[in-house]
Amino acid sequence: MPATARASRQPRTSRPQARGLRTREAILARAVDIASVDGLDGLTVGSLATQLHMSKSGLFAHFGSKEELQLATIEVARQIFISQVTRPAISAPRGMPRLWGLINQWLILVEKRVFSGGCFFSAASFEFDSKRGVVHDRIAAIMREWMDVLTLAVEQAQKAGHIHAKVNSTRLAYEIHGVAMGAHWAHQLLDDKQAYARARSIVLEKLRSIATPASPRLP
Amino acid sequence: MPATARASRQPRTSRPQARGLRTREAILARAVDIASVDGLDGLTVGSLATQLHMSKSGLFAHFGSKEELQLATIEVARQIFISQVTRPAISAPRGMPRLWGLINQWLILVEKRVFSGGCFFSAASFEFDSKRGVVHDRIAAIMREWMDVLTLAVEQAQKAGHIHAKVNSTRLAYEIHGVAMGAHWAHQLLDDKQAYARARSIVLEKLRSIATPASPRLP
Repeated sequence: MPATARASRQPRTSRPQARGLRTREAILARAVDIASVDGLDGLTVGSLATQLHMSKSGLFAHFGSKEELQLATIEVARQIFISQVTRPAISAPRGMPRLWGLINQWLILVEKRVFSGGCFFSAASFEFDSKRGVVHDRIAAIMREWMDVLTLAVEQAQKAGHIHAKVNSTRLAYEIHGVAMGAHWAHQLLDDKQAYARARSIVLEKLRSIATPASPRLP
Repeated sequence: MPATARASRQPRTSRPQARGLRTREAILARAVDIASVDGLDGLTVGSLATQLHMSKSGLFAHFGSKEELQLATIEVARQIFISQVTRPAISAPRGMPRLWGLINQWLILVEKRVFSGGCFFSAASFEFDSKRGVVHDRIAAIMREWMDVLTLAVEQAQKAGHIHAKVNSTRLAYEIHGVAMGAHWAHQLLDDKQAYARARSIVLEKLRSIATPASPRLP
């Protein structure tokens, strides 16, 4: 996972502060995985300490409260999402290739089981959608950010002349987001082996139906 | 909510068994609501007893374990879903009207806040999708049942000549399911007031694009 990979790329040093940072990253890499399976509320300092063979007081030195641990875990999951979904997709040219890349990379991220429990943010969304507080607010802000990225990609594809101008960009963003989230649901809950192939075929058919002749060919 | 309504329609009787049944229904009506907000794992016998002003031992007389309480809560949520979604939709003629009714009634159910915490089964799905055991298995079985109902409705619409025969029924069922689940997500997490109007417009556009001239008009 990216968090672990980042930690191992850091220069070796004996300074306590650097060791503390590496420990923090290792703790959070494990926390992301646990939260994707048991939920963010299933992430207790006690259970995490047991799994990492650390003392609870050692963990509390890094995170003063459960909420602080939840927020830090969400930030690591967001960085993984950015490094494995948004960044590779944005390296593709603006327009249809970038829009397709955003959805396809998201499907790949969950398909290759970067998170043990499926899509971290779909699970966190449904866990916290009726709760109030800073954890809910942070998840909602990250999800708004994601919908803005998707909507902007549609609008860029329209400016590039790849998608017909009459298409409602927000509506299209929510439509393909829903289909992808439905695939995570079917794959993780129903063990549906066809879920990702089906979602790709639905999204590609939709994108082809609104593509102009100037659009680069889709896969 | 239907469970409460059913309870109040029962003939009044002083027999202890009937009183017990009414109490059980009242407990489960409350449990469904709590679980839709806090999750099924947030549903403890202790917190439920506090909210219902009952003793924990009184509650344990109805449910021997947390798992038994979770399973009973799921069955009540399923009955609400059947009475408010599947049954009204199935009262419409086979074909396009019934297919549209299934999705539309599901959107109405969550939109009118029958469950305090949004879509009970979407939340339960993501909460238990990575867990093992009888609660996971029951949720997955109910969701398979729902996807089968949707797929059958597509196939009946094809047999009725309302939807082109070349359409892949399973794919269409998952596509419209994903769009509706995405609306629940946007409405509950992002407080998106347009979520349901947008989902209806996406699903209706999709259904119109595959309807034959013989199909009854969609709204």
